[in-house]
Amino acid sequence: MAEEIIRPVIKELKEYVPGKTPKKPGIAKLSSNENPFGPSPKALEAIAKETRNLQIYPDQKSILLREALAKELKIDEGCLIVGNGSDEIMQLAAATYLKPGEEVIISKNTFSVYEFVTRLLDGKPVFVDLKNYAQDLDAMAKAVNPKTKMIFLCNPHNPTGTIFTAKELDSFLKIIPENILIIIDEAYLEFVESREFPESLKYIRESKNLLVLRTFSKYYGLAGLRVGYGVAKKELVSYLFRAKLPFNVNRLAQAGAKAALEDKSFLEKTYKNNLEGKKYFYAELDKLGLEYKKTESNFIFINLKKPADLLFMQMMRQGVIIRPLTSFGLPEAIRVSIGTKEQNEKFIKGLSKHL
Amino acid sequence: MAEEIIRPVIKELKEYVPGKTPKKPGIAKLSSNENPFGPSPKALEAIAKETRNLQIYPDQKSILLREALAKELKIDEGCLIVGNGSDEIMQLAAATYLKPGEEVIISKNTFSVYEFVTRLLDGKPVFVDLKNYAQDLDAMAKAVNPKTKMIFLCNPHNPTGTIFTAKELDSFLKIIPENILIIIDEAYLEFVESREFPESLKYIRESKNLLVLRTFSKYYGLAGLRVGYGVAKKELVSYLFRAKLPFNVNRLAQAGAKAALEDKSFLEKTYKNNLEGKKYFYAELDKLGLEYKKTESNFIFINLKKPADLLFMQMMRQGVIIRPLTSFGLPEAIRVSIGTKEQNEKFIKGLSKHL
Repeated sequence: MAEEIIRPVIKELKEYVPGKTPKKPGIAKLSSNENPFGPSPKALEAIAKETRNLQIYPDQKSILLREALAKELKIDEGCLIVGNGSDEIMQLAAATYLKPGEEVIISKNTFSVYEFVTRLLDGKPVFVDLKNYAQDLDAMAKAVNPKTKMIFLCNPHNPTGTIFTAKELDSFLKIIPENILIIIDEAYLEFVESREFPESLKYIRESKNLLVLRTFSKYYGLAGLRVGYGVAKKELVSYLFRAKLPFNVNRLAQAGAKAALEDKSFLEKTYKNNLEGKKYFYAELDKLGLEYKKTESNFIFINLKKPADLLFMQMMRQGVIIRPLTSFGLPEAIRVSIGTKEQNEKFIKGLSKHL
Repeated sequence: MAEEIIRPVIKELKEYVPGKTPKKPGIAKLSSNENPFGPSPKALEAIAKETRNLQIYPDQKSILLREALAKELKIDEGCLIVGNGSDEIMQLAAATYLKPGEEVIISKNTFSVYEFVTRLLDGKPVFVDLKNYAQDLDAMAKAVNPKTKMIFLCNPHNPTGTIFTAKELDSFLKIIPENILIIIDEAYLEFVESREFPESLKYIRESKNLLVLRTFSKYYGLAGLRVGYGVAKKELVSYLFRAKLPFNVNRLAQAGAKAALEDKSFLEKTYKNNLEGKKYFYAELDKLGLEYKKTESNFIFINLKKPADLLFMQMMRQGVIIRPLTSFGLPEAIRVSIGTKEQNEKFIKGLSKHL
C-alpha cells in the first residue's frame, strides 16, 4: 500500500546512528562532541528572556542573528543563511542544486548526512578514500567528471580530527571547475589550533561557488536548540532561501545563538579546556601505546585495531559513553569527545582496564 | 554562475508572505492566528527546566512527546511523527511520496506551503476552486486522474474558517483511490465548535492512506518554538522517518509541547476566549453590514469587497495588524485572528472608522 507508492530512494536511506545518550546522571557522555560545560550562560539569559514571546512565529530570515554574524565575520548579511542546524543547510543545498543522477563527491568514513542529502535528492554519491585518515583532496579532484555537481568537504574532519591546509584548499579550488558547488562543513572550526587552517570565507568574497557551514552545536554548547549557518556569495544564498520553509529556525535558537556569539569568557574557557584535554589525551594514549591522530577539533580519533563495539559496551558499564565508528565504516576505531578534566580521566581509567 | 546550475523549479518558488510582526509594544497582532494569551504556562516551566540540557542533541525520534501524544490520542506511538512545525511534515510527505510530474490536488486560496512543497519536489499542483469559501470535496474528487499522487485538505480551512463534515469526508474517502495519499492539515482543530467535524484519526486506525497534521503553534501558543506532528498508519510514518534529518525537533520544543498538552486550564481559557470573541465579532460585523464567514477556528474571514491592502495600512496606523489576503489570491478579503477582548474591540473600533 504505502510501500508501492513511495519514491524508490526512500527505501535505500539509512537511519542516522546518533551518539548514545545516558539515561541516568553522572555518566560521561563523550559520544557527540558536545560542550562539556553546558550551554553558553549568555545564551541561557537571552533564551529565558525570549520565552515570553514564544507564541509568536519566529523571524523568517533570522535577521538579528544574521546581522550579528555579519559583523562578527565581516561579511555582508546577504551572504548568510541560518538553518535548523547546519544539516538543514546541507539539505537545502542539495534541494537547490542537485538534479537526479548528478554526482556528489564525498570522503569515505565521514559524517553521514552528506550521503543522506545526496541520496534524498536522487544524486549519486561518489566516495573517495581517506589518506592516512585525512581527506585526500588530490584524489577528490581526480574524481571530478562532467556529471559532478557538488563536493562535500569537512574541515576539521569528523571523525578523525585532521585538517586540510590553506595551501591545499587553494590548489584544490584552482583545479575544480566553476560550475561545481563546493561545501565545506566547518562544524569544529573554533577548536582549531593549527595556523595552516584555511580562511575559507576569503574565497566567498572572491565569488567562488563555495558554501561554508558552521554550527552553534559544538563550541557554543547549543546542540539541543538546533542552529547552524551557511556562508556563500549572495546569489547562491538567495537561491537557498527560496528552497527553505518559512519558519525554519525557532525563536530561542535565534536569540540564544546571537547571545552566545558574544559570550567571550565562556568561549575562552571552552577553548582552553579543549587544549588541555588534548594534551592530556596525547600523553596518556602514548603511555598506553595506542594509535591516535593529533586533533584540530574537540574529539580524538583512536585506532584500537580491535572491534570497537566491544569496548563501547565495556566503557558503558564504566559510566563513559564513547562513539564506536562502526557506522562510519571504521569498526576498529573510536571517537572520544574531549570532556572536562574529570571526564577525560574517567575515560582513560576505563580504557586502561579494557585494553 | 550559480543561476546556471540550480534546479529549474527553484526560480519558480515564491517566498512565503508572513503576517506582519509589530516593531513596538502595545500593537494588536491579529495577523498570524497566534494565541493571544502567550505560551502555555506549563510549557514555559518545562522549557525553563530543559534549558540546562541545551548542549545535548535532542532525541532523534521525539520519544517522550510521542508517548504523551499517543496516550492523549489513543493511538500507537508508531503512528506519530514530530516535525519542526507541521510544515516540515508536509515537506517530508512530498519528499517521501512525490515523483517528478505527479499531480497534487490543492484548493485555490489556501495555505501556501502545500503548493510550495509540491513544486519543490517537482510535482504539479492542480488547483480546485473553493465553493462559497469552503473546500469543494466533490470537485476535488473529480480532479483525480491516474497522475494524482497526493491531495492536500485543510480542516478547518485557512483562511476562511470553514470546515468539511464527517459525512463529507466519509464519502470523499470512499471515492479516492487507495494509492493516493490524502493529507489533512488540522492546525486549527482544537478551536472547532461544530459537532459535524470529522474524527479523522478513525480512518488511520482503518489503515487508509491518510496523514493528519496538527500543530502546537496555535492553540498551545508555541509558534515560536516550531513543533507540529503527523498521524498516519505505522508503515506510512516509518517512511517519513527515513526521509527526515536526524535532529529535526529541538529539545525545548519536545519538552514544551509535552507539558502544553497537559495544561488543561490554559487550554480551557483559550477555547472560552475564542468562543466569546467569535460571538462578539459576529454581532459587530452584522452591525457594520459586512460579509464574513462563521468560523470554526481562531480567526475570521471578512469579504470587504474592496482592496484589503489599503485597509491593512489604515489599521496598522491604528495599532492593529490584520492579514490582507492578497497573497492567498483574495485581494478584497482579510483574515483577522480572534484576540483578547481588548484586541477585538480595538480592531472593531478601527474597522468602523475606515469602512
